[in-house]
Amino acid sequence: MSLLVVGSVAFDAIETPFGKTDKIVGGAASYICLAASYFNKHSHLVSVVGGDFPENFIQLLQQQGVNTEGLQIKKDEKSFFWSGKYHNDLNNRDTLVTELNVLGTFNPIVPESAQNAEFLMLGNLAPAVQISVIQQMKTRPKLIVLDTMNFWMDIALDELKQVIGMIDVLTINDAEARQLSGEYSLVKAAQKILKMGLKALVIKKGEHGALLFNHDQVFFAPALPLEEVYDPTGAGDTFAGGFIGYLAKTEDISFDNMKRAIIFGSAMASFTVEKFGTERLIGLSQEDVDERVKEFINLVQFDIDLY
Amino acid sequence: MSLLVVGSVAFDAIETPFGKTDKIVGGAASYICLAASYFNKHSHLVSVVGGDFPENFIQLLQQQGVNTEGLQIKKDEKSFFWSGKYHNDLNNRDTLVTELNVLGTFNPIVPESAQNAEFLMLGNLAPAVQISVIQQMKTRPKLIVLDTMNFWMDIALDELKQVIGMIDVLTINDAEARQLSGEYSLVKAAQKILKMGLKALVIKKGEHGALLFNHDQVFFAPALPLEEVYDPTGAGDTFAGGFIGYLAKTEDISFDNMKRAIIFGSAMASFTVEKFGTERLIGLSQEDVDERVKEFINLVQFDIDLY
Repeated sequence: MSLLVVGSVAFDAIETPFGKTDKIVGGAASYICLAASYFNKHSHLVSVVGGDFPENFIQLLQQQGVNTEGLQIKKDEKSFFWSGKYHNDLNNRDTLVTELNVLGTFNPIVPESAQNAEFLMLGNLAPAVQISVIQQMKTRPKLIVLDTMNFWMDIALDELKQVIGMIDVLTINDAEARQLSGEYSLVKAAQKILKMGLKALVIKKGEHGALLFNHDQVFFAPALPLEEVYDPTGAGDTFAGGFIGYLAKTEDISFDNMKRAIIFGSAMASFTVEKFGTERLIGLSQEDVDERVKEFINLVQFDIDLY
Repeated sequence: MSLLVVGSVAFDAIETPFGKTDKIVGGAASYICLAASYFNKHSHLVSVVGGDFPENFIQLLQQQGVNTEGLQIKKDEKSFFWSGKYHNDLNNRDTLVTELNVLGTFNPIVPESAQNAEFLMLGNLAPAVQISVIQQMKTRPKLIVLDTMNFWMDIALDELKQVIGMIDVLTINDAEARQLSGEYSLVKAAQKILKMGLKALVIKKGEHGALLFNHDQVFFAPALPLEEVYDPTGAGDTFAGGFIGYLAKTEDISFDNMKRAIIFGSAMASFTVEKFGTERLIGLSQEDVDERVKEFINLVQFDIDLY
């Protein structure tokens, strides 16, 4: 089914204990589109880049089945740029540089061909921008998933709550769930946040996995224990891309299928962290993905017969 | 099958964001024996208390099928006492008081009736004390599980490594696994620690669950997401008690059965944290335990068919 992805396409410069990069391609929508492309080949990208952005990455997306008609290229401006340095444990990072550039004035225009997309993934952007995308849809998508961050809770909470009321599934991390709800217990936090108008909530816990809640069920998927985590950048976006890509492919938005989508999303994220940036998400085979999913099955499945 | 539990039986005074206690019964072996008693009724306790320790708790253990012949009661001395205060997130705590009292000179004597126990659980104690217990066994137990902590890595590393070479399964937390191995990656840490002579290693991650490793497999069990965590004291010992109690009951030390034991241990630990001290571990029914295990099954089971 058709999937519309809206989010940043950008440059990152990353430093981890294992090395550092020059400017490489990053941005939420880059990770989301690549991860989703392993499941669903009918996607549209709405984003903005400057004249400095490499044409070959856009071609790569197109080869992966991403329609880039909605990608605005502002020839005389520069792409969004973020630079960060991770601490030794990789769980914390300091932002060194944030240059909004073209993203500062981003006004997303959903092309007519994407206005009936059945699945909509809104990557982390200003809530007002996310709202404007929803308002451009001709038919209400079957499922809208939205990612956001603490920054918008700090400076645009009312608009954020407004957009949460318009979507189906919210993905945030544990600290953000606590901030948004005022509850320390993630179970209580989830109950409060779901009442803002959601069908389901995903709480991402980084190396500690992810929780999926609906109004009466909870599911947990661990992160795969890896020998080396090289660069966590984009793991959450990759997870979201795998999640919605799998749902769009299977056209099934039941809780049981969302559980599967969480596993596929986690599997995709486990690739991303193995190299810098989007590198590991390029050129994976179906066998690579299946093999990773099998590792998840082996990791968590057990057999207890209580009856 | 018969199970021998060696560890502290003590008093704790605990302060959490939800309240504080006077001196209440605590100690690793108290939690271990109670948790194990829900699976296996043939256990022996080797420990030491002072004349101040309540007779009714000893009777409670006896009612749960614990043979307390090996519990030394030093009438004129005082029981081990620990007092601690948890931070708001319950993941960190400050020790306020440690009075070793009878534990300072503890010389465990394994009664003849326990010298052929098939399962041995060594709670956190000085490695030299743990070694002396193993040396008193007439026949080598089918399985020896040992818990320890960073304190012994700091002050008695050589003896700790010696006892690790004598046992089958080690349980430590993630920070301790990193300290003991010098590896940040838990996968690498586990590989190094297993080579010290273990069949399996359990890495406890508190609210983030637990990992079970052997030389070529890994299994992960989450902690149950709870509405309220009241007091984490004893959760790790309860987990260990449920783990070895289930193994002793089923007499099966295969990796697949250890996976089940991890789930039962996690289920027992999820009770402990709901109240102060050992309170919640008293008077549970088989239905209570089964119900909790079903919650684990619902939490992690998914159904993906890759073929």
